[in-house]
Amino acid sequence: MKPGTLYGIGVGPGDPELLTLKGLRLLRSVPLVYVPVARPGARSYAREIAAEHLDLNRQQVVELVFAMREEPAVMQGHWKANAAVIAKGLREGSDVAFVTEGDPMLFSTWVHVAAALHETLPEAPIVVVPGISSPQAAAAAAGVPLADRDERLAILPATYEREGLLEALRSFDTVVLLKVASAMDRVLDALEALHLSCRAVYIGQCGRPDQEIVRDVRELRGRSLPYFSLLIIRRNA
Amino acid sequence: MKPGTLYGIGVGPGDPELLTLKGLRLLRSVPLVYVPVARPGARSYAREIAAEHLDLNRQQVVELVFAMREEPAVMQGHWKANAAVIAKGLREGSDVAFVTEGDPMLFSTWVHVAAALHETLPEAPIVVVPGISSPQAAAAAAGVPLADRDERLAILPATYEREGLLEALRSFDTVVLLKVASAMDRVLDALEALHLSCRAVYIGQCGRPDQEIVRDVRELRGRSLPYFSLLIIRRNA
Repeated sequence: MKPGTLYGIGVGPGDPELLTLKGLRLLRSVPLVYVPVARPGARSYAREIAAEHLDLNRQQVVELVFAMREEPAVMQGHWKANAAVIAKGLREGSDVAFVTEGDPMLFSTWVHVAAALHETLPEAPIVVVPGISSPQAAAAAAGVPLADRDERLAILPATYEREGLLEALRSFDTVVLLKVASAMDRVLDALEALHLSCRAVYIGQCGRPDQEIVRDVRELRGRSLPYFSLLIIRRNA
Repeated sequence: MKPGTLYGIGVGPGDPELLTLKGLRLLRSVPLVYVPVARPGARSYAREIAAEHLDLNRQQVVELVFAMREEPAVMQGHWKANAAVIAKGLREGSDVAFVTEGDPMLFSTWVHVAAALHETLPEAPIVVVPGISSPQAAAAAAGVPLADRDERLAILPATYEREGLLEALRSFDTVVLLKVASAMDRVLDALEALHLSCRAVYIGQCGRPDQEIVRDVRELRGRSLPYFSLLIIRRNA
């Protein structure tokens, strides 16, 4: 039997209406939908975003655990075990979907799911459906362009080593700092050193009901901020 | 009368199914849809992507000319004239949409449309609906991640001055080079100098029927390439 297709579907950063038409069609077409969770029984944001598009009378939702802060060897074991679960459905000829917040190719567990599945069942087709990423939704919500004309854009993840951060802020027109909550005070120091505080906009919980936009980022010093928080710094704002 | 709302809707890079549900709902809700063209009577890619979602029995499509290679003063005149056209509909109380390829906040005429409209009619609400960008669709089509874990991503537009390009390629995990066609031979020289040719993937006409993916980019030397062409260079592929 020919194996089914694994669809990696980006469901966007929070608002269920930011799913694409292609994502919706494929999500509704499969009997099995895999959702990532950080530990058994934990909330799955991707599942919450996808929930209103699913029909639980004919579709089964299966949680796959990805404990992101484990040692690499432990993580490898997770990927492998999850790939084995997904391969089972595919071998029976079913198409299945894995849903992921934001875009599957941008800071997503999807990349590891796809790699492990390809190793386990190389003959299974894999199709990626892009999703709206949080930088895009944040830029739209705040009305701040990410790039225009010949500008250069950098997107940096949560680890902010001072020199690398200063260098990016100096040489790029727009810098997006993701998951910035835990590093906010250090980031504010760097922005102040470069006189860029007034060029930064903070967006917390983008696309969720408790979304917050702060245009004077100096107010954020010392505040406890949510995990899904980012800064857009636009030099020529 | 309260003015209508201007929606800036990203329709994605080519495949009409990559429109979001929100984009579709708002696109269908307005009587007037503005589309950008480079000159009167020219093709509008955004219009072609949106076409199947429109109902021409009840919706009017209006072309706005944005001749992108004019002098700044001429361009300013374009923005202003187009804003006046859009403001007219809004003043009559209609909601209207401006559609744009890809994402409105990433290398799009939208940024100028919104700025000029805000100047002309500051009381009109402006809502941006994000769209799938070409780097995302290209990454999905080619199966190449844009960023994973603590990796850093840079997106650079068409002007590739050698030192800036080398610096970005040295310090970022993934670099996306947009509209690379006219600079391809120079870019290939830079990739070879850094031994990165084998880490680059070319995607031309992403999401269109004539999409092309080239994994040995050295084949591209001397070829005539389409305007919508990009490279994804992933250092640790």
